[in-house]
Amino acid sequence: MKTPVTVLGLGAMGTALARAFLAAGHPTTVWNRTPGRSPELDVVRAATAGEAIAASPLVVVCLLVDDTVRSTLDGIDLTGKTIVNLTNSTPDQARATAERVTAAGAQYVGGGIMAVPAMIGGPAAFIFYSGVPEAFEEHRAALSVLARPEYVGTDPGLAALHDIALLSAMYGMFGGAQHALALIGTENLPAEPFTERFLLPWLTAMLGSLPRIAKDLDNGPSDTAGSNLAMQAAAFDNLTDTSNAQGIDPMLLEPMGTLLRKAVAAGRGDADLAALVGLLRTPAG
Amino acid sequence: MKTPVTVLGLGAMGTALARAFLAAGHPTTVWNRTPGRSPELDVVRAATAGEAIAASPLVVVCLLVDDTVRSTLDGIDLTGKTIVNLTNSTPDQARATAERVTAAGAQYVGGGIMAVPAMIGGPAAFIFYSGVPEAFEEHRAALSVLARPEYVGTDPGLAALHDIALLSAMYGMFGGAQHALALIGTENLPAEPFTERFLLPWLTAMLGSLPRIAKDLDNGPSDTAGSNLAMQAAAFDNLTDTSNAQGIDPMLLEPMGTLLRKAVAAGRGDADLAALVGLLRTPAG
Repeated sequence: MKTPVTVLGLGAMGTALARAFLAAGHPTTVWNRTPGRSPELDVVRAATAGEAIAASPLVVVCLLVDDTVRSTLDGIDLTGKTIVNLTNSTPDQARATAERVTAAGAQYVGGGIMAVPAMIGGPAAFIFYSGVPEAFEEHRAALSVLARPEYVGTDPGLAALHDIALLSAMYGMFGGAQHALALIGTENLPAEPFTERFLLPWLTAMLGSLPRIAKDLDNGPSDTAGSNLAMQAAAFDNLTDTSNAQGIDPMLLEPMGTLLRKAVAAGRGDADLAALVGLLRTPAG
Repeated sequence: MKTPVTVLGLGAMGTALARAFLAAGHPTTVWNRTPGRSPELDVVRAATAGEAIAASPLVVVCLLVDDTVRSTLDGIDLTGKTIVNLTNSTPDQARATAERVTAAGAQYVGGGIMAVPAMIGGPAAFIFYSGVPEAFEEHRAALSVLARPEYVGTDPGLAALHDIALLSAMYGMFGGAQHALALIGTENLPAEPFTERFLLPWLTAMLGSLPRIAKDLDNGPSDTAGSNLAMQAAAFDNLTDTSNAQGIDPMLLEPMGTLLRKAVAAGRGDADLAALVGLLRTPAG
Protein backbone atom coordinates (compact mmCIF):
# COMPACT_ATOMS: atom_id res chain seq x y z
CA MET A 1 0.00 0.00 0.00
CA LYS A 2 1.17 3.50 -0.73
CA THR A 3 1.91 5.79 2.21
CA PRO A 4 -1.24 7.25 3.73
CA VAL A 5 -1.12 11.03 3.49
CA THR A 6 -2.93 13.80 5.31
CA VAL A 7 -3.43 17.24 3.77
CA LEU A 8 -4.28 20.12 6.10
CA GLY A 9 -5.91 22.98 4.20
CA LEU A 10 -8.17 22.78 1.15
CA GLY A 11 -7.59 26.08 -0.54
CA ALA A 12 -6.86 25.98 -4.26
CA MET A 13 -3.34 24.67 -3.65
CA GLY A 14 -4.25 22.19 -0.88
CA THR A 15 -7.00 20.78 -3.08
CA ALA A 16 -4.55 20.35 -5.96
CA LEU A 17 -2.13 18.53 -3.64
CA ALA A 18 -4.84 16.20 -2.28
CA ARG A 19 -6.02 15.47 -5.82
CA ALA A 20 -2.47 14.55 -6.92
CA PHE A 21 -2.00 12.19 -3.93
CA LEU A 22 -5.37 10.57 -4.68
CA ALA A 23 -4.58 10.17 -8.35
CA ALA A 24 -1.35 8.37 -7.42
CA GLY A 25 -3.21 5.93 -5.16
CA HIS A 26 -2.29 7.34 -1.75
CA PRO A 27 -5.00 6.89 0.92
CA THR A 28 -5.69 10.56 1.59
CA THR A 29 -7.22 12.22 4.63
CA VAL A 30 -8.02 15.91 4.59
CA TRP A 31 -9.00 18.61 7.04
CA ASN A 32 -10.06 22.16 6.44
CA ARG A 33 -10.96 24.80 9.01
CA THR A 34 -14.17 25.50 7.10
CA PRO A 35 -15.79 22.11 6.35
CA GLY A 36 -17.24 21.25 2.97
CA ARG A 37 -14.44 22.55 0.76
CA SER A 38 -13.69 20.60 -2.44
CA PRO A 39 -16.66 18.19 -2.08
CA GLU A 40 -15.73 16.30 -5.27
CA LEU A 41 -12.61 14.76 -3.69
CA ASP A 42 -12.88 11.08 -2.75
CA VAL A 43 -11.02 11.46 0.54
CA VAL A 44 -11.48 10.79 4.24
CA ARG A 45 -12.64 14.03 5.85
CA ALA A 46 -11.48 14.35 9.44
CA ALA A 47 -13.51 16.37 11.91
CA THR A 48 -10.47 17.90 13.58
CA ALA A 49 -6.88 18.61 12.64
CA GLY A 50 -5.81 16.16 15.37
CA GLU A 51 -7.86 13.32 13.85
CA ALA A 52 -6.48 14.12 10.39
CA ILE A 53 -2.90 14.06 11.64
CA ALA A 54 -3.48 10.78 13.50
CA ALA A 55 -4.55 9.11 10.22
CA SER A 56 -1.19 9.28 8.35
CA PRO A 57 2.57 9.21 8.95
CA LEU A 58 3.04 11.96 6.32
CA VAL A 59 1.22 15.24 7.00
CA VAL A 60 1.32 17.95 4.34
CA VAL A 61 0.36 21.39 5.65
CA CYS A 62 -0.88 23.95 3.11
CA LEU A 63 -2.70 26.69 5.00
CA LEU A 64 -3.24 30.33 4.13
CA VAL A 65 -0.58 31.92 6.34
CA ASP A 66 1.99 30.96 8.92
CA ASP A 67 -0.21 32.10 11.85
CA THR A 68 -2.76 29.47 10.86
CA VAL A 69 -0.09 26.78 10.88
CA ARG A 70 0.77 27.70 14.45
CA SER A 71 -2.84 27.78 15.69
CA THR A 72 -3.71 24.55 13.84
CA LEU A 73 -0.79 22.44 15.12
CA ASP A 74 -0.46 23.84 18.65
CA GLY A 75 -1.30 21.31 21.36
CA ILE A 76 -1.46 18.29 19.04
CA ASP A 77 0.77 15.26 19.71
CA LEU A 78 2.95 14.85 16.61
CA THR A 79 5.03 11.89 17.80
CA GLY A 80 6.43 9.90 14.87
CA LYS A 81 4.94 12.13 12.20
CA THR A 82 6.70 13.86 9.33
CA ILE A 83 5.32 17.37 8.92
CA VAL A 84 5.88 18.79 5.44
CA ASN A 85 4.93 22.47 5.61
CA LEU A 86 4.13 23.90 2.19
CA THR A 87 2.44 27.03 3.56
CA ASN A 88 3.89 30.29 2.18
CA SER A 89 6.37 31.31 4.88
CA THR A 90 9.47 33.36 5.43
CA PRO A 91 12.62 31.38 6.35
CA ASP A 92 12.35 32.58 9.96
CA GLN A 93 8.72 31.49 10.17
CA ALA A 94 9.67 28.08 8.82
CA ARG A 95 12.50 27.80 11.37
CA ALA A 96 10.13 28.70 14.22
CA THR A 97 7.55 26.16 13.03
CA ALA A 98 10.29 23.54 12.77
CA GLU A 99 11.23 24.15 16.41
CA ARG A 100 7.67 23.82 17.67
CA VAL A 101 6.92 20.77 15.53
CA THR A 102 10.15 19.05 16.57
CA ALA A 103 9.36 19.75 20.25
CA ALA A 104 5.98 18.05 19.68
CA GLY A 105 7.71 14.86 18.48
CA ALA A 106 7.69 15.24 14.67
CA GLN A 107 10.35 15.52 11.99
CA TYR A 108 10.05 18.79 10.06
CA VAL A 109 10.49 19.35 6.33
CA GLY A 110 9.79 22.83 4.95
CA GLY A 111 8.76 23.41 1.39
CA GLY A 112 8.31 26.11 -1.21
CA ILE A 113 6.01 25.37 -4.14
CA MET A 114 7.21 26.80 -7.47
CA ALA A 115 3.91 26.42 -9.28
CA VAL A 116 0.33 27.59 -9.39
CA PRO A 117 -2.30 24.99 -8.42
CA ALA A 118 -3.08 24.04 -12.04
CA MET A 119 0.57 22.94 -12.51
CA ILE A 120 0.58 20.45 -9.59
CA GLY A 121 1.13 16.91 -10.86
CA GLY A 122 2.43 18.29 -14.17
CA PRO A 123 5.95 18.26 -15.60
CA ALA A 124 6.87 21.95 -15.15
CA ALA A 125 6.25 22.25 -11.40
CA PHE A 126 8.91 21.78 -8.75
CA ILE A 127 8.97 22.12 -4.97
CA PHE A 128 11.92 23.15 -2.80
CA TYR A 129 12.38 21.11 0.38
CA SER A 130 14.69 21.57 3.34
CA GLY A 131 14.87 20.10 6.84
CA VAL A 132 15.44 16.61 8.26
CA PRO A 133 17.07 14.72 5.36
CA GLU A 134 15.97 11.23 6.51
CA ALA A 135 12.34 12.34 6.71
CA PHE A 136 12.57 13.87 3.23
CA GLU A 137 14.17 10.73 1.76
CA GLU A 138 11.59 8.46 3.43
CA HIS A 139 8.79 10.38 1.70
CA ARG A 140 10.54 11.43 -1.49
CA ALA A 141 8.49 9.04 -3.63
CA ALA A 142 5.16 10.23 -2.22
CA LEU A 143 6.17 13.90 -2.54
CA SER A 144 7.27 13.32 -6.14
CA VAL A 145 3.66 12.85 -7.23
CA LEU A 146 3.07 16.55 -6.48
CA ALA A 147 5.99 17.98 -8.44
CA ARG A 148 9.71 17.42 -8.97
CA PRO A 149 11.29 17.63 -5.49
CA GLU A 150 14.42 19.78 -5.04
CA TYR A 151 16.07 19.23 -1.64
CA VAL A 152 18.30 22.19 -0.75
CA GLY A 153 19.64 21.56 2.77
CA THR A 154 19.04 20.71 6.41
CA ASP A 155 18.20 24.28 7.58
CA PRO A 156 14.37 24.24 7.64
CA GLY A 157 14.34 27.86 6.34
CA LEU A 158 16.27 27.16 3.13
CA ALA A 159 13.28 25.97 1.09
CA ALA A 160 11.47 29.25 1.80
CA LEU A 161 14.64 31.23 1.07
CA HIS A 162 15.05 29.55 -2.33
CA ASP A 163 11.35 30.03 -3.08
CA ILE A 164 11.48 33.73 -2.24
CA ALA A 165 14.75 34.25 -4.10
CA LEU A 166 13.22 32.84 -7.30
CA LEU A 167 10.02 34.86 -6.86
CA SER A 168 12.17 37.99 -6.43
CA ALA A 169 13.98 37.20 -9.66
CA MET A 170 10.67 36.60 -11.41
CA TYR A 171 9.16 39.89 -10.26
CA GLY A 172 12.29 41.75 -11.37
CA MET A 173 12.07 40.18 -14.82
CA PHE A 174 8.31 40.80 -15.12
CA GLY A 175 8.72 44.39 -13.90
CA GLY A 176 11.37 45.10 -16.51
CA ALA A 177 9.23 43.52 -19.22
CA GLN A 178 6.16 45.48 -18.12
CA HIS A 179 8.13 48.72 -18.29
CA ALA A 180 9.39 47.80 -21.77
CA LEU A 181 5.86 46.96 -22.98
CA ALA A 182 4.53 50.20 -21.50
CA LEU A 183 7.18 52.20 -23.41
CA ILE A 184 6.41 50.42 -26.68
CA GLY A 185 2.69 51.01 -26.12
CA THR A 186 3.19 54.79 -25.99
CA GLU A 187 3.79 54.77 -29.76
CA ASN A 188 0.79 52.49 -30.34
CA LEU A 189 3.01 49.61 -31.37
CA PRO A 190 1.44 46.20 -30.67
CA ALA A 191 2.99 44.19 -27.84
CA GLU A 192 3.05 40.75 -29.46
CA PRO A 193 5.44 41.35 -32.39
CA PHE A 194 7.78 43.37 -30.14
CA THR A 195 7.74 40.54 -27.59
CA GLU A 196 8.32 37.70 -30.06
CA ARG A 197 10.81 39.51 -32.29
CA PHE A 198 12.83 41.43 -29.69
CA LEU A 199 11.93 41.12 -26.01
CA LEU A 200 12.10 37.32 -25.69
CA PRO A 201 15.30 36.81 -27.74
CA TRP A 202 16.96 39.72 -25.94
CA LEU A 203 16.11 38.54 -22.43
CA THR A 204 17.07 34.99 -23.36
CA ALA A 205 20.47 36.28 -24.53
CA MET A 206 20.91 38.42 -21.40
CA LEU A 207 20.18 35.40 -19.18
CA GLY A 208 23.45 34.11 -20.57
CA SER A 209 25.31 36.70 -18.44
CA LEU A 210 23.98 35.32 -15.16
CA PRO A 211 26.51 32.46 -14.84
CA ARG A 212 29.38 34.95 -15.19
CA ILE A 213 27.83 37.24 -12.56
CA ALA A 214 27.47 34.21 -10.25
CA LYS A 215 31.07 33.18 -10.93
CA ASP A 216 32.31 36.68 -10.06
CA LEU A 217 30.33 36.53 -6.82
CA ASP A 218 31.87 33.20 -5.84
CA ASN A 219 35.45 33.81 -7.00
CA GLY A 220 35.88 37.57 -7.05
CA PRO A 221 35.61 39.79 -10.11
CA SER A 222 37.10 38.78 -13.45
CA ASP A 223 37.69 41.23 -16.30
CA THR A 224 34.78 43.51 -17.06
CA ALA A 225 33.60 42.28 -20.43
CA GLY A 226 30.86 44.83 -20.88
CA SER A 227 30.15 48.34 -19.70
CA ASN A 228 31.39 49.17 -16.22
CA LEU A 229 29.05 50.57 -13.56
CA ALA A 230 30.21 54.19 -14.05
CA MET A 231 29.26 54.04 -17.74
CA GLN A 232 25.96 52.38 -16.90
CA ALA A 233 25.15 54.95 -14.20
CA ALA A 234 25.86 57.77 -16.67
CA ALA A 235 23.68 56.20 -19.36
CA PHE A 236 20.85 55.33 -16.98
CA ASP A 237 19.32 58.83 -17.09
CA ASN A 238 18.34 58.11 -20.72
CA LEU A 239 16.02 55.39 -19.42
CA THR A 240 14.25 57.54 -16.85
CA ASP A 241 14.22 60.65 -19.10
CA THR A 242 12.72 58.65 -21.96
CA SER A 243 10.13 57.07 -19.69
CA ASN A 244 9.05 60.44 -18.33
CA ALA A 245 8.98 62.01 -21.80
CA GLN A 246 6.84 59.13 -23.12
CA GLY A 247 4.43 59.36 -20.16
CA ILE A 248 5.57 56.20 -18.38
CA ASP A 249 6.29 56.25 -14.65
CA PRO A 250 9.87 54.96 -14.17
CA MET A 251 9.02 53.70 -10.66
CA LEU A 252 10.08 50.12 -11.37
CA LEU A 253 13.45 51.23 -12.81
CA GLU A 254 14.48 54.09 -10.55
CA PRO A 255 15.92 51.95 -7.72
CA MET A 256 18.41 50.44 -10.19
CA GLY A 257 19.57 53.96 -11.07
CA THR A 258 19.91 54.70 -7.36
CA LEU A 259 21.93 51.52 -6.86
CA LEU A 260 24.22 52.28 -9.82
CA ARG A 261 24.92 55.79 -8.47
CA LYS A 262 25.52 54.31 -5.00
CA ALA A 263 28.09 51.93 -6.49
CA VAL A 264 29.93 54.79 -8.21
CA ALA A 265 29.85 56.88 -5.01
CA ALA A 266 31.31 53.88 -3.13
CA GLY A 267 34.26 53.77 -5.52
CA ARG A 268 33.01 50.72 -7.47
CA GLY A 269 32.57 52.55 -10.79
CA ASP A 270 35.03 50.26 -12.54
CA ALA A 271 33.27 47.09 -11.36
CA ASP A 272 30.45 45.30 -13.15
CA LEU A 273 26.94 44.13 -12.28
CA ALA A 274 28.04 41.48 -9.78
CA ALA A 275 29.22 44.29 -7.48
CA LEU A 276 25.63 45.50 -7.04
CA VAL A 277 24.71 42.31 -5.17
CA GLY A 278 26.95 43.21 -2.24
CA LEU A 279 25.52 46.73 -2.11
CA LEU A 280 22.09 45.28 -1.30
CA ARG A 281 23.37 44.05 2.07
CA THR A 282 22.13 46.29 4.85
CA PRO A 283 24.62 47.46 7.51
CA ALA A 284 22.95 45.15 10.03
CA GLY A 285 22.86 42.27 7.52
CA MET B 1 34.24 49.83 -54.60
CA LYS B 2 32.42 49.56 -51.33
CA THR B 3 30.65 52.63 -50.00
CA PRO B 4 33.05 55.11 -48.37
CA VAL B 5 32.05 55.58 -44.73
CA THR B 6 32.80 58.30 -42.20
CA VAL B 7 32.72 57.61 -38.46
CA LEU B 8 32.45 60.59 -36.11
CA GLY B 9 33.64 59.71 -32.61
CA LEU B 10 36.40 57.27 -31.65
CA GLY B 11 35.37 56.20 -28.19
CA ALA B 12 35.33 52.46 -27.52
CA MET B 13 32.17 52.00 -29.61
CA GLY B 14 33.16 54.35 -32.45
CA THR B 15 36.51 52.59 -32.73
CA ALA B 16 34.77 49.19 -32.91
CA LEU B 17 32.48 50.51 -35.67
CA ALA B 18 35.39 51.96 -37.70
CA ARG B 19 37.31 48.70 -37.31
CA ALA B 20 34.33 46.67 -38.60
CA PHE B 21 33.93 48.94 -41.65
CA LEU B 22 37.67 48.67 -42.37
CA ALA B 23 37.65 44.90 -42.00
CA ALA B 24 34.82 44.70 -44.56
CA GLY B 25 36.79 46.81 -47.05
CA HIS B 26 34.98 50.13 -46.75
CA PRO B 27 37.20 53.19 -47.30
CA THR B 28 36.88 54.72 -43.86
CA THR B 29 37.38 58.29 -42.72
CA VAL B 30 37.28 59.15 -39.03
CA TRP B 31 37.15 62.26 -36.91
CA ASN B 32 37.44 62.63 -33.17
CA ARG B 33 37.24 65.81 -31.12
CA THR B 34 40.48 64.84 -29.37
CA PRO B 35 42.98 63.81 -32.10
CA GLY B 36 45.17 60.72 -31.79
CA ARG B 37 42.55 58.26 -30.57
CA SER B 38 42.87 54.63 -31.80
CA PRO B 39 46.23 55.17 -33.59
CA GLU B 40 46.32 51.55 -34.80
CA LEU B 41 43.42 52.07 -37.24
CA ASP B 42 44.39 52.30 -40.93
CA VAL B 43 41.94 55.10 -41.71
CA VAL B 44 41.88 58.59 -43.14
CA ARG B 45 41.94 61.04 -40.23
CA ALA B 46 40.12 64.25 -41.03
CA ALA B 47 41.15 67.47 -39.33
CA THR B 48 37.58 68.66 -38.86
CA ALA B 49 34.14 67.10 -38.65
CA GLY B 50 33.24 68.99 -41.85
CA GLU B 51 36.13 67.43 -43.78
CA ALA B 52 35.24 63.98 -42.43
CA ILE B 53 31.61 64.37 -43.50
CA ALA B 54 32.62 65.62 -46.97
CA ALA B 55 34.60 62.39 -47.54
CA SER B 56 31.69 59.88 -47.57
CA PRO B 57 28.02 59.60 -48.50
CA LEU B 58 27.38 57.54 -45.34
CA VAL B 59 28.20 59.23 -42.03
CA VAL B 60 27.92 57.23 -38.83
CA VAL B 61 27.79 59.37 -35.69
CA CYS B 62 28.80 57.74 -32.40
CA LEU B 63 29.56 60.50 -29.92
CA LEU B 64 29.34 60.50 -26.14
CA VAL B 65 26.04 62.34 -25.67
CA ASP B 66 23.37 64.05 -27.72
CA ASP B 67 24.69 67.55 -26.92
CA THR B 68 27.94 66.66 -28.69
CA VAL B 69 26.01 65.52 -31.77
CA ARG B 70 24.37 68.94 -31.93
CA SER B 71 27.59 70.93 -31.44
CA THR B 72 29.50 68.73 -33.90
CA LEU B 73 26.98 68.87 -36.78
CA ASP B 74 25.73 72.44 -36.38
CA GLY B 75 26.66 74.70 -39.26
CA ILE B 76 27.94 71.92 -41.56
CA ASP B 77 26.41 71.45 -45.02
CA LEU B 78 24.97 67.92 -45.08
CA THR B 79 23.48 68.02 -48.58
CA GLY B 80 23.12 64.52 -50.03
CA LYS B 81 24.49 62.75 -46.97
CA THR B 82 22.89 59.95 -44.98
CA ILE B 83 23.45 60.57 -41.28
CA VAL B 84 23.16 57.41 -39.17
CA ASN B 85 23.15 58.53 -35.56
CA LEU B 86 24.18 55.72 -33.18
CA THR B 87 24.82 58.04 -30.23
CA ASN B 88 22.87 57.04 -27.08
CA SER B 89 19.80 59.26 -27.23
CA THR B 90 16.26 59.50 -26.04
CA PRO B 91 13.55 59.28 -28.73
CA ASP B 92 12.89 63.02 -28.42
CA GLN B 93 16.59 63.83 -28.80
CA ALA B 94 16.73 61.63 -31.91
CA ARG B 95 13.65 63.38 -33.34
CA ALA B 96 15.20 66.81 -32.72
CA THR B 97 18.48 65.74 -34.34
CA ALA B 98 16.53 64.34 -37.30
CA GLU B 99 14.86 67.73 -37.79
CA ARG B 100 18.12 69.67 -37.73
CA VAL B 101 19.94 67.17 -39.95
CA THR B 102 17.08 67.11 -42.45
CA ALA B 103 17.04 70.92 -42.54
CA ALA B 104 20.77 70.79 -43.35
CA GLY B 105 20.07 68.64 -46.42
CA ALA B 106 20.69 65.08 -45.15
CA GLN B 107 18.55 61.99 -44.74
CA TYR B 108 18.38 60.87 -41.11
CA VAL B 109 18.47 57.33 -39.75
CA GLY B 110 18.55 56.87 -35.98
CA GLY B 111 20.00 53.82 -34.34
CA GLY B 112 20.25 51.98 -31.06
CA ILE B 113 23.15 49.57 -30.61
CA MET B 114 22.23 46.41 -28.66
CA ALA B 115 25.81 45.35 -27.96
CA VAL B 116 28.97 46.30 -26.13
CA PRO B 117 31.94 47.29 -28.34
CA ALA B 118 33.52 43.82 -28.19
CA MET B 119 30.41 42.35 -29.82
CA ILE B 120 30.47 44.62 -32.92
CA GLY B 121 31.00 42.57 -36.07
CA GLY B 122 30.03 39.40 -34.21
CA PRO B 123 26.92 37.24 -34.56
CA ALA B 124 25.09 38.20 -31.33
CA ALA B 125 24.94 41.98 -31.85
CA PHE B 126 22.05 43.81 -33.45
CA ILE B 127 21.23 47.46 -34.05
CA PHE B 128 17.79 49.07 -34.17
CA TYR B 129 17.30 51.59 -36.98
CA SER B 130 14.45 53.97 -37.71
CA GLY B 131 14.01 56.98 -39.99
CA VAL B 132 14.06 57.50 -43.76
CA PRO B 133 13.46 53.99 -45.17
CA GLU B 134 15.13 54.64 -48.55
CA ALA B 135 18.32 55.87 -46.84
CA PHE B 136 18.35 52.82 -44.60
CA GLU B 137 17.83 50.44 -47.54
CA GLU B 138 20.53 52.14 -49.61
CA HIS B 139 23.07 51.52 -46.84
CA ARG B 140 21.71 48.28 -45.38
CA ALA B 141 24.61 46.23 -46.76
CA ALA B 142 27.25 48.57 -45.30
CA LEU B 143 25.47 48.77 -41.93
CA SER B 144 25.17 44.97 -41.82
CA VAL B 145 28.93 44.65 -41.30
CA LEU B 146 28.48 46.24 -37.85
CA ALA B 147 25.68 43.99 -36.57
CA ARG B 148 22.35 42.54 -37.70
CA PRO B 149 20.19 45.53 -38.64
CA GLU B 150 16.60 45.69 -37.33
CA TYR B 151 14.56 48.45 -38.97
CA VAL B 152 11.57 49.38 -36.80
CA GLY B 153 9.83 52.31 -38.53
CA THR B 154 9.95 55.74 -40.11
CA ASP B 155 9.72 57.77 -36.86
CA PRO B 156 13.36 58.67 -36.15
CA GLY B 157 12.75 58.17 -32.40
CA LEU B 158 11.63 54.53 -32.65
CA ALA B 159 15.12 53.03 -32.70
CA ALA B 160 15.96 54.77 -29.41
CA LEU B 161 12.58 53.76 -27.96
CA HIS B 162 13.20 50.09 -28.80
CA ASP B 163 16.75 50.31 -27.45
CA ILE B 164 15.61 51.83 -24.16
CA ALA B 165 12.68 49.41 -23.83
CA LEU B 166 15.05 46.43 -24.09
CA LEU B 167 17.54 48.00 -21.68
CA SER B 168 14.69 48.54 -19.21
CA ALA B 169 13.72 44.89 -19.49
CA MET B 170 17.36 43.86 -19.01
CA TYR B 171 17.81 45.99 -15.91
CA GLY B 172 14.60 44.59 -14.43
CA MET B 173 15.81 41.05 -15.02
CA PHE B 174 19.30 41.76 -13.68
CA GLY B 175 17.86 43.57 -10.64
CA GLY B 176 15.65 40.61 -9.78
CA ALA B 177 18.55 38.20 -10.23
CA GLN B 178 20.82 40.37 -8.09
CA HIS B 179 18.24 40.41 -5.31
CA ALA B 180 17.89 36.62 -5.55
CA LEU B 181 21.67 36.13 -5.41
CA ALA B 182 21.94 38.51 -2.46
CA LEU B 183 19.29 36.48 -0.57
CA ILE B 184 21.05 33.18 -1.31
CA GLY B 185 24.36 34.71 -0.21
CA THR B 186 23.00 35.49 3.26
CA GLU B 187 23.15 31.77 4.07
CA ASN B 188 26.65 31.46 2.58
CA LEU B 189 25.37 29.37 -0.31
CA PRO B 190 27.52 29.70 -3.45
CA ALA B 191 25.95 31.61 -6.33
CA GLU B 192 26.99 29.35 -9.22
CA PRO B 193 25.11 26.15 -8.36
CA PHE B 194 22.00 28.15 -7.42
CA THR B 195 22.22 30.00 -10.73
CA GLU B 196 22.76 26.94 -12.92
CA ARG B 197 20.38 24.62 -11.10
CA PHE B 198 17.52 27.00 -10.28
CA LEU B 199 17.78 30.65 -11.33
CA LEU B 200 18.42 30.14 -15.06
CA PRO B 201 15.85 27.34 -15.61
CA TRP B 202 13.27 29.27 -13.57
CA LEU B 203 13.71 32.56 -15.42
CA THR B 204 13.77 30.72 -18.74
CA ALA B 205 10.45 29.09 -17.83
CA MET B 206 8.97 32.40 -16.66
CA LEU B 207 9.95 34.07 -19.96
CA GLY B 208 7.36 31.72 -21.44
CA SER B 209 4.61 33.86 -19.84
CA LEU B 210 5.60 37.00 -21.74
CA PRO B 211 3.80 36.14 -24.99
CA ARG B 212 0.54 35.66 -23.05
CA ILE B 213 1.03 39.00 -21.27
CA ALA B 214 1.66 40.64 -24.66
CA LYS B 215 -1.42 38.97 -26.13
CA ASP B 216 -3.57 40.22 -23.26
CA LEU B 217 -2.25 43.74 -23.84
CA ASP B 218 -3.12 43.63 -27.54
CA ASN B 219 -6.47 41.83 -27.31
CA GLY B 220 -7.74 42.44 -23.79
CA PRO B 221 -7.45 40.05 -20.87
CA SER B 222 -8.00 36.33 -21.27
CA ASP B 223 -8.59 33.95 -18.36
CA THR B 224 -6.22 34.36 -15.44
CA ALA B 225 -4.20 31.17 -15.54
CA GLY B 226 -2.09 31.88 -12.49
CA SER B 227 -2.46 33.91 -9.32
CA ASN B 228 -4.46 37.10 -9.63
CA LEU B 229 -3.05 40.45 -8.53
CA ALA B 230 -4.91 40.47 -5.19
CA MET B 231 -3.29 37.14 -4.22
CA GLN B 232 0.09 38.37 -5.40
CA ALA B 233 -0.22 41.65 -3.49
CA ALA B 234 -1.11 39.72 -0.31
CA ALA B 235 1.83 37.34 -0.74
CA PHE B 236 4.31 40.07 -1.64
CA ASP B 237 4.99 41.02 1.99
CA ASN B 238 6.76 37.66 2.38
CA LEU B 239 9.37 38.87 -0.10
CA THR B 240 10.09 42.17 1.63
CA ASP B 241 9.83 40.66 5.15
CA THR B 242 12.26 37.89 4.23
CA SER B 243 14.68 40.34 2.62
CA ASN B 244 14.68 42.57 5.69
CA ALA B 245 15.03 39.60 8.05
CA GLN B 246 17.98 38.27 6.03
CA GLY B 247 19.68 41.68 5.96
CA ILE B 248 18.99 42.46 2.30
CA ASP B 249 17.60 45.85 1.28
CA PRO B 250 14.38 45.20 -0.70
CA MET B 251 14.83 48.49 -2.62
CA LEU B 252 14.77 46.82 -6.05
CA LEU B 253 11.57 44.91 -5.24
CA GLU B 254 9.50 47.41 -3.29
CA PRO B 255 8.11 49.33 -6.28
CA MET B 256 6.53 46.09 -7.57
CA GLY B 257 4.77 45.72 -4.20
CA THR B 258 3.59 49.32 -4.48
CA LEU B 259 2.30 48.67 -8.00
CA LEU B 260 0.47 45.48 -6.95
CA ARG B 261 -1.24 47.32 -4.09
CA LYS B 262 -2.11 50.18 -6.46
CA ALA B 263 -3.73 47.67 -8.83
CA VAL B 264 -5.84 46.21 -6.02
CA ALA B 265 -6.84 49.70 -4.82
CA ALA B 266 -7.86 50.53 -8.40
CA GLY B 267 -10.24 47.54 -8.43
CA ARG B 268 -7.99 45.37 -10.63
CA GLY B 269 -7.36 42.68 -7.99
CA ASP B 270 -8.88 39.97 -10.17
CA ALA B 271 -6.67 40.86 -13.16
CA ASP B 272 -3.24 39.46 -13.91
CA LEU B 273 0.21 40.86 -14.61
CA ALA B 274 -0.68 42.45 -17.95
CA ALA B 275 -2.88 44.93 -16.06
CA LEU B 276 0.20 46.42 -14.38
CA VAL B 277 1.47 47.75 -17.71
CA GLY B 278 -1.42 50.20 -17.98
CA LEU B 279 -0.88 51.39 -14.41
CA LEU B 280 2.59 52.64 -15.37
CA ARG B 281 1.05 55.29 -17.63
CA THR B 282 1.21 58.69 -15.97
CA PRO B 283 -1.93 60.88 -15.98
CA ALA B 284 -0.26 63.20 -18.49
CA GLY B 285 0.94 60.23 -20.56
